[in-house]
Amino acid sequence: MTSPASRRAQVVGCGLIGGSIGLALRERGWHVTGSDDDAAHADRALELGALDVVGTDGEAELTFVATPAGAVVDAAWAALAGSGVVTDVGGVKASIVAGVDHPRFVGGHPMAGSEQEGVDGARGDLFQGAVWVLTPTAITDDDAHTLVRSVVTSLGAEVVELPPARHDALVAIVSHVPHLTAATLMTMAAEGAEEHRALLRLAAGGFRDMTRIASGHPGIWPDICAENRDAIVAALEELEASLRKIRDVVAAGDRSSLLDVLERARAARINLPSRVASMADMAEVRVPVPDRAGVLAEVTTLASELGVSIADLEIAHSSEGQAGVLVILVPTSSVERFTGGLIARGYRSSWRSLE
Amino acid sequence: MTSPASRRAQVVGCGLIGGSIGLALRERGWHVTGSDDDAAHADRALELGALDVVGTDGEAELTFVATPAGAVVDAAWAALAGSGVVTDVGGVKASIVAGVDHPRFVGGHPMAGSEQEGVDGARGDLFQGAVWVLTPTAITDDDAHTLVRSVVTSLGAEVVELPPARHDALVAIVSHVPHLTAATLMTMAAEGAEEHRALLRLAAGGFRDMTRIASGHPGIWPDICAENRDAIVAALEELEASLRKIRDVVAAGDRSSLLDVLERARAARINLPSRVASMADMAEVRVPVPDRAGVLAEVTTLASELGVSIADLEIAHSSEGQAGVLVILVPTSSVERFTGGLIARGYRSSWRSLE
Repeated sequence: MTSPASRRAQVVGCGLIGGSIGLALRERGWHVTGSDDDAAHADRALELGALDVVGTDGEAELTFVATPAGAVVDAAWAALAGSGVVTDVGGVKASIVAGVDHPRFVGGHPMAGSEQEGVDGARGDLFQGAVWVLTPTAITDDDAHTLVRSVVTSLGAEVVELPPARHDALVAIVSHVPHLTAATLMTMAAEGAEEHRALLRLAAGGFRDMTRIASGHPGIWPDICAENRDAIVAALEELEASLRKIRDVVAAGDRSSLLDVLERARAARINLPSRVASMADMAEVRVPVPDRAGVLAEVTTLASELGVSIADLEIAHSSEGQAGVLVILVPTSSVERFTGGLIARGYRSSWRSLE
Repeated sequence: MTSPASRRAQVVGCGLIGGSIGLALRERGWHVTGSDDDAAHADRALELGALDVVGTDGEAELTFVATPAGAVVDAAWAALAGSGVVTDVGGVKASIVAGVDHPRFVGGHPMAGSEQEGVDGARGDLFQGAVWVLTPTAITDDDAHTLVRSVVTSLGAEVVELPPARHDALVAIVSHVPHLTAATLMTMAAEGAEEHRALLRLAAGGFRDMTRIASGHPGIWPDICAENRDAIVAALEELEASLRKIRDVVAAGDRSSLLDVLERARAARINLPSRVASMADMAEVRVPVPDRAGVLAEVTTLASELGVSIADLEIAHSSEGQAGVLVILVPTSSVERFTGGLIARGYRSSWRSLE
């Protein structure tokens, strides 16, 4: 293993996310080369300390494509002409992953943002505690996947592996449709206010909280809505149907159904998971795996499906042949569920507590 | 005018709002008597310094009915057996105001709350900067109205006058429907998570903001939804129609319509008014008014309809007869709109800047 001081990374696209990745990597001793279609952005990233040098690096160990989603496929293929691993940060994954079907490409999506846009908003700690989705597939090289996973984890993010289409359906529900709904609520209130301006002065904290995301720049949304159209349309239909149901409950004066709906929502909101547990509650699960493409994707995606949070993961390659052992750190509370799921998929595992 | 030290108020219902009113009034030198159907709540309010004495005060200058909305009408009539002015804090106004058709009753609704419920969450500064709606009608006594307005303003709140039905329609849009929508989004996400727990770990800050209000106790909502049923059902229908429209835009890939919707929402969110301007930007508008019931309600409601924020208001009674002059403080920027509206309603006014 090379020393961190000599590791080389590349950032393509120097906006908020690309700049933050550059800052975070350089804080950890990486040498970072960066470029942007707009040369002024790359120069500014250099000025802010997010890059060591402006340009491209065909021998970078890892390239982060942090361009707008529509430009990722071309930029990723260009980076794959080099020898390293390539990942991206696009908010919609199925179309990108289908467009970059290469073993050294791992789709990614850091769930982090900032009020401030552009490289001037970049921060080295932007990913601390954030969820960072990776979308490896059956053709993804396991070492490429573990490299991206370990680097992203070193930036402070919590990695969640998901199949690309599943990622897109989930972000439609927890991000895209909430954004469109916030905008819709805000517009409804503002249109009501045209005939009666007092309305908006009644908006208390709850309304302000609910509509805050509608104040963001809308520029990114046409692309997102185009690329994730089907999932967004499906989630909007589901929301409309759910609102119709609650309207029927209100119209019928059905108090117990209303209480039931609100109690379930309350319980879910209170249980909305925050961040990983402390290391003291961790268990190390060892999974011998065959030399077969897609095993790592299958195991990590299974963990996500089971709600098992992977705190750390490495591949201990066997000295004889290509088989190896996955060493996975998970919360002790979920180890039974995880090993049970592994058995169901044909993997025999062992585990020990780290306490 | 009696000195503040000798003014007596009464609070009926010692929860979060009643307790906070008691604390705020006592901080300003009032003597506060309080009661609650649950004697333990009143005792606790006394212990916390929100009351001077537990009991009832038939001679209180002003009574705040701060019971649950369903109990307001009976409690208000009981308080009206005394000699003072009575107001309430119920979240739905048309049914309450129709049920307490008395000149000395002024419907009210402070738009303030807290994470913590009950009298233990009470704070004397709960109303600082909050909007406090009053719903005077044509039968409301002007002096009763100005008393409530001045006391509520002294607690740090910004008063907005609205007709009761209008209040109910507006809070359906900016409070009730957003709450039901937050619960619906949260439930949708949680139900998706049953088959795929990873979903909730993708929920970033925007989703957390949007669903935060769903974590509140649902106990108050069956009453609110029953009392404001028609307005809530209408606002839900409007939201569903708006979501259908945005779904069509997404499905059609209509980028410019999508940008247009989001730009309008963004502008509205950015312009969401916060609080009153500084006194330096204020103008004093003087409106001679005839001795006729409902004039004050008409003028203040007109101000709200025009989006004119009334920072202060007093009635300068004429020494001859019952006619008088309303002295109203409004932002200088809105004085033209306000005086124009007054002329349209048959009121000649004059104004001067306070700079």
